[in-house]
Amino acid sequence: MNTSSRIYTAALVVIGDEILSGRTHDKNIAQIASWLQVQGIRLKEVRVVADDTDAIVEAVNALRTRNDYLFTTGGIGPTHDDITVDAISAALGVEVVVHDEARAILEEYYTTRGGLTDARLRMARTPAGASLIPNRYTGAPGIHVENVFIMAGVPSITAGMLEALTGTLEGGAPLLSKTIGCWVGESDVAVLLRETEQAHPNCQIGSYPFWGEGRTGANFVIRSVDAEELAACARALVGGLEDMGRAPVPGGI
Amino acid sequence: MNTSSRIYTAALVVIGDEILSGRTHDKNIAQIASWLQVQGIRLKEVRVVADDTDAIVEAVNALRTRNDYLFTTGGIGPTHDDITVDAISAALGVEVVVHDEARAILEEYYTTRGGLTDARLRMARTPAGASLIPNRYTGAPGIHVENVFIMAGVPSITAGMLEALTGTLEGGAPLLSKTIGCWVGESDVAVLLRETEQAHPNCQIGSYPFWGEGRTGANFVIRSVDAEELAACARALVGGLEDMGRAPVPGGI
Repeated sequence: MNTSSRIYTAALVVIGDEILSGRTHDKNIAQIASWLQVQGIRLKEVRVVADDTDAIVEAVNALRTRNDYLFTTGGIGPTHDDITVDAISAALGVEVVVHDEARAILEEYYTTRGGLTDARLRMARTPAGASLIPNRYTGAPGIHVENVFIMAGVPSITAGMLEALTGTLEGGAPLLSKTIGCWVGESDVAVLLRETEQAHPNCQIGSYPFWGEGRTGANFVIRSVDAEELAACARALVGGLEDMGRAPVPGGI
Repeated sequence: MNTSSRIYTAALVVIGDEILSGRTHDKNIAQIASWLQVQGIRLKEVRVVADDTDAIVEAVNALRTRNDYLFTTGGIGPTHDDITVDAISAALGVEVVVHDEARAILEEYYTTRGGLTDARLRMARTPAGASLIPNRYTGAPGIHVENVFIMAGVPSITAGMLEALTGTLEGGAPLLSKTIGCWVGESDVAVLLRETEQAHPNCQIGSYPFWGEGRTGANFVIRSVDAEELAACARALVGGLEDMGRAPVPGGI
């Protein structure tokens, strides 16, 4: 990782009928988004697609070419609906091979668990030219090929793979943020927010309203790669809220 | 709604930097996915994009043309980062107008709350030719234009808009599902799952593993639009698990 001014971007393809049916609530988007922030990499776009080869190939090829990194989650287990390795190999135009190291990991794991059946051997298949992403939590490795990182659908398994990747990807300056909360309707401060953002061109301000305790409030999230400008923008926003007779809450509500 | 054999599809564009930064955990994907299932409409693809006009336009135009319906969430509030109406108008090639009915709703609402300021009037802007989606929970309406349904980012507000749309969209036969759980490693039943699915060509079987109580288990979700075939497939899978000496759990674990 370095702190150059180049912006590094990533995209994520979430693969799984169970997300599109509403059966499973995705947790990987937030998990990977938060992890990328710390690596100094911006998550630019997420697509959720079905367990369908054409849909996976389209999403992977659209996103891998216009981002530094592409992550996928889901579809790398031993059953017939696990088609991610085949689809990504098709997208990259490479063969599917049995990866020697992955095969060895599985052989050892299943020695005392009934042996390495054909179904289990499916989990040793990777796109040609891939390396494995170790996973000290569950043993099941992820797959790295070109700029594509193939992760599990189960969030706790993906967490182990992300831990192994921490600090290994080249990133830029991390996007910093400060949150300021206030019990105020966001329409009452729309002008202040716009003018404060315009006066601090290297900062973006997001406004996130909520309702609670019978009142209306909002959190204002200021983001910048420059710590000094971030602090100046936050001071300006706090001052503006105070000038309106409002009580800003640093850190958010 | 009818029950023809035509399959109706929808896509969803989730708009918001706060999802891509990991700050906010999206709840609208699961909410809208579950609601669409009941309407007999299949959610085919979801994209999460930034608060960026070009990104919104690209996603909206890619998905609205190849699906019966397109839903969006986020970016319809009163602040400078709320650009959804402008971006969708650009995508459709129509002007942004102040919608008379939306303006009247806001004027009434703000009569006792400080009046209709310019910032608040932003929320009355719609693409030309749009109608409003009423919302009896919070009053804030969604927007319907062509085959695009523009919803709020806050899930409780979107819930009110979905309630108003319930039963109004043409859908096909709802996708039915049955879940069968079993304390078994999915690699042990991979062959059974594949063969059972192949023997029931109008059914799909998804396999979702989990780990708990020190054991390995999985839920098998069978989906079909045909209730009889769904039942036959479920019977075959239950029988196959029993033949292997396993105890299937109808309804799932």
